[in-house]
Amino acid sequence: MNALRDFVAERDWAQFHTPENLAKSISIEAAELLELFQWSEPSNVNDVKDELADVLTYCLLMADRMGFDFEGIIREKLQKTESKYPVETSKGKSVKYDRL
Amino acid sequence: MNALRDFVAERDWAQFHTPENLAKSISIEAAELLELFQWSEPSNVNDVKDELADVLTYCLLMADRMGFDFEGIIREKLQKTESKYPVETSKGKSVKYDRL
Amino acid sequence: MNALRDFVAERDWAQFHTPENLAKSISIEAAELLELFQWSEPSNVNDVKDELADVLTYCLLMADRMGFDFEGIIREKLQKTESKYPVETSKGKSVKYDRL
Amino acid sequence: MNALRDFVAERDWAQFHTPENLAKSISIEAAELLELFQWSEPSNVNDVKDELADVLTYCLLMADRMGFDFEGIIREKLQKTESKYPVETSKGKSVKYDRL
Repeated sequence: MNALRDFVAERDWAQFHTPENLAKSISIEAAELLELFQWSEPSNVNDVKDELADVLTYCLLMADRMGFDFEGIIREKLQKTESKYPVETSKGKSVKYDRL
Repeated sequence: MNALRDFVAERDWAQFHTPENLAKSISIEAAELLELFQWSEPSNVNDVKDELADVLTYCLLMADRMGFDFEGIIREKLQKTESKYPVETSKGKSVKYDRL
Repeated sequence: MNALRDFVAERDWAQFHTPENLAKSISIEAAELLELFQWSEPSNVNDVKDELADVLTYCLLMADRMGFDFEGIIREKLQKTESKYPVETSKGKSVKYDRL
Repeated sequence: MNALRDFVAERDWAQFHTPENLAKSISIEAAELLELFQWSEPSNVNDVKDELADVLTYCLLMADRMGFDFEGIIREKLQKTESKYPVETSKGKSVKYDRL
């Protein structure tokens, strides 16, 4: 996180990193990751690394910008998801909780 | 990461978590985050927390599935981005590296 | 539509155009359009033309592949949306129908 | 197009339909279409109809807002794509033009 903050500060880029612009950026990078799987499996695993890192980077920048602890919000959401998808009813199924 | 792995294992969901399905999931969750900014600023910061956590969760699951160290790939990509965007030429600008 | 069908047939590309691959392609092209608005307004209106045309093209190919009449499905959906958003309650508001 | 314009005008929604908001909306709806293919094939073809119609609707609204003729931009882009992907080299292949 500190390395990312330094990177942004040195370039004076925080001015562009509004929550909305970061939300757009996450969607844009997510689609570049998806593009590797558009017609077939990716031919180069390093491309997956790079694109996944881009999504993660913007997610961390957004968490930081919003004042969220990124590990904390993952844990909190996991607890919510656990109660929405009890093991007994959701095991081995890919359906949404409202159809369980 | 261990909490996420347990969550998936208990529900026998690894079978659905192919790299391609995770790439789709990251795009889908990224768009749910973007939806909070569709017409105006989000009215509830907790919604941002939840949706950002969803994107992060699928990113971590994908990193794990691909055998990537998630901190490692962010650092590696940051180094590449640093050399693409030297401080001198990119400071205060939001243009792509090929237009710097 | 005929010009698009010929283009695909000549290249023997229908084999790649499964509904799932077209759904991914629509998301990918939609993000390329969004990228023009990532940090500021697009500098070149022709880029918007090209990217919007890409989204539309994959939408038409998907409609054709699924056997949908593209004008028909837009009309049908418009009727549904009209009843979800009555003029009296939704006029001048950007909130979702479940909050009207 | 006229039916769409009336729908928007009656609700006084043109104020929300900036090009940027429409670009976000297209990405958001594209992801809802993709969600039907997240873990398996869609169980209900009518869902595909509705979500594809949503993407198309926002595309037409954007074309209209930008002053584009939607058929015209599809044709123009098709011509560009035809010259990027000559039949001889691209037949039966799903690789990008820069790798042909």
